[in-house]
Amino acid sequence: MRTQVAIIGAGPAGLALGRLLEKAGIDNVILERKSGEYVLSRIRAGVLEQGSADVLDRLGLGARMHAEGLTHHGVDLCFDGDIQHIDFTALVGRHVTVYGQTEVTRDLMAARAASSLTTIYEADEVTPHDFDGARPRVTWRKDGVTHSLDCDFIVGCDGFHGVARASIPERALTLFDRHYPFGWLGVMVDQPPVSDELIYAHHERGFALCSMRSMTRSRYYVQVQEGERVEDWSDQRFWDELRRRINPQAAASLRTGASIEKSIAPLRSFVAEPLRFGALFLAGDAAHIVPPTGAKGLNLAISDVVMLGEALAAFYADKSAAGLDDYSRRALSRIWKAERFSWWMTTLLHTFPETGPFGRRIQRADFDYLRASKAAQTSLAENYTGLSLAVE
Amino acid sequence: MRTQVAIIGAGPAGLALGRLLEKAGIDNVILERKSGEYVLSRIRAGVLEQGSADVLDRLGLGARMHAEGLTHHGVDLCFDGDIQHIDFTALVGRHVTVYGQTEVTRDLMAARAASSLTTIYEADEVTPHDFDGARPRVTWRKDGVTHSLDCDFIVGCDGFHGVARASIPERALTLFDRHYPFGWLGVMVDQPPVSDELIYAHHERGFALCSMRSMTRSRYYVQVQEGERVEDWSDQRFWDELRRRINPQAAASLRTGASIEKSIAPLRSFVAEPLRFGALFLAGDAAHIVPPTGAKGLNLAISDVVMLGEALAAFYADKSAAGLDDYSRRALSRIWKAERFSWWMTTLLHTFPETGPFGRRIQRADFDYLRASKAAQTSLAENYTGLSLAVE
Repeated sequence: MRTQVAIIGAGPAGLALGRLLEKAGIDNVILERKSGEYVLSRIRAGVLEQGSADVLDRLGLGARMHAEGLTHHGVDLCFDGDIQHIDFTALVGRHVTVYGQTEVTRDLMAARAASSLTTIYEADEVTPHDFDGARPRVTWRKDGVTHSLDCDFIVGCDGFHGVARASIPERALTLFDRHYPFGWLGVMVDQPPVSDELIYAHHERGFALCSMRSMTRSRYYVQVQEGERVEDWSDQRFWDELRRRINPQAAASLRTGASIEKSIAPLRSFVAEPLRFGALFLAGDAAHIVPPTGAKGLNLAISDVVMLGEALAAFYADKSAAGLDDYSRRALSRIWKAERFSWWMTTLLHTFPETGPFGRRIQRADFDYLRASKAAQTSLAENYTGLSLAVE
Repeated sequence: MRTQVAIIGAGPAGLALGRLLEKAGIDNVILERKSGEYVLSRIRAGVLEQGSADVLDRLGLGARMHAEGLTHHGVDLCFDGDIQHIDFTALVGRHVTVYGQTEVTRDLMAARAASSLTTIYEADEVTPHDFDGARPRVTWRKDGVTHSLDCDFIVGCDGFHGVARASIPERALTLFDRHYPFGWLGVMVDQPPVSDELIYAHHERGFALCSMRSMTRSRYYVQVQEGERVEDWSDQRFWDELRRRINPQAAASLRTGASIEKSIAPLRSFVAEPLRFGALFLAGDAAHIVPPTGAKGLNLAISDVVMLGEALAAFYADKSAAGLDDYSRRALSRIWKAERFSWWMTTLLHTFPETGPFGRRIQRADFDYLRASKAAQTSLAENYTGLSLAVE
């Protein structure tokens, strides 16, 4: 069995790359360890940068996103009950679209299924081989049989815990890691969202986020200490805590209900450099993690595969390796800016056990400066709606 | 002896306040522990925000500043040798003026000497009394005699180590403090500056700053570890270290020479809240310290006394205490934004012993984002040239 590009992982990064390559006439196979149903069951972020939405349009997959997604022209930031609206459209002429990662994945899966390209789910023991040599290939086991796929390139879109990054010799990678000493307790509820737009709130008791999946399904989060357990958070306790942390107007109009999902997610910043080792490339969570503040994870995965897709298309069209040689540098330039933004929003909005009174005042001054400065608001807006892929 | 406002400290804050009050027809006496010569011998910052220069103009003291000061339309930021010009004039239509604090003080002193107002130098044991009661007064000893001055208000412009803040009951103040584990080793040299504008440089070996007092006198700094001693830094060692940290072009054209002053200054962020206790007000370094990165110290002192001067003028003109009641809140709003900016510039440009590889990449991403974003550059420019006094 042979293909041009073997893609490990059928999450949004792998599926989007497969579709981008298909459009460029490049044969590819996707190998996924789990079932499609499992992939779709993972609840993830739901805010698409305008550039990410444009990519789905370009791939011919924007119809449902436009019909069901919610266009958000801004966000609200709240600090100890004071609220500031950040108007993306007025500031930078761009917006974001609230459309769950699950839905993006579903649309990409449907397109993949309708294509003639091969996707193998429930592939066990997926292993990349000889990507530093002349004959890259991927092997896996399925139904008791070992399979092998020869290819020109292998792309790891298999997430933080995937095999792709783990296959690269340790000495060839530099890892950058920041652990945050807290997590997000998230609750999904079938109630209309408290506000038309997202509310990111800092409170002395901790961060809170009012988000949504649709006009009838809301997603709320509160910052919890490391080591806290979901079992200790009744719905009532969650709603009480959320109300305390958001602005009074939102707290008064919050519509609560029985949670349909409740979980705690850790926060982490992580980058592996470089994104290439021989014929093996990394994209998305396989290469980098951002804390969810700022909603950059899915969007970074999409910008990675757009850059890599362009480089692969140039390779096959012009026999030019320049784009592939430059992929890691180009992608990392954007990745680090998104890491910086996610780190900054996290730092602004959360409470840190080690931050003393001076640090809290700096957080407040950051918020007050943001309220007073169009330049600071523009900076937030351009980062939130997504930096250009043409960044140096 | 009686006056309307007793001012403790004849540094730029006290002298400027005296002049502002004089212009408003408000009698005031300035008490200074040291001699005038001593005050002038202290080498301090040399960058005036446009608003600070405007204040000197309004006070009729701008002639020499305009003749001898250097108008700077921007600064250069340098990171590991890469340089980025920040064009204040293009970004925010404002500039700064390089004119030493010593020169500002000299101009203010000359105006004070020419006025009929009393200034008492070498006043020992200056002590504010009964500022929480009905009869505020200040006592001091001079030439073996104890003197007493009755007044309506006392203003502490006597710096971080002064008596004014120390006289306020501890329980009435909240102190915010951040210590930086390094200092600035500064060298003054009679050589033309290496560049027409200031160069703020981050290097993995530490921060460096190329500054100037005039077109023939330069001021250079390098970050040094806590505990280092001036005696261990020969001129040659200093120049070698400076050259390593700045961009190659500047390093090549640096003109060195024998230092005419060499000293190490610690870095600190500090704010005391509130700025008023009864009839006693704090302004300038008596209330807050910023690290020198961003050159905010003198400028904050000037904006403090402008706000306080306005409030006192309104009190005497309209018998309205509203301005005095609001002084602390209003001044602190601007002070904390300047603290934030100084902290941010310090954090971006210095090396921190506790910052691991992730932190260094975030610093670099901050610099790269600044290079790529007009909004981020505008934010820096508006802070560096000085935020409005009308901030909320």
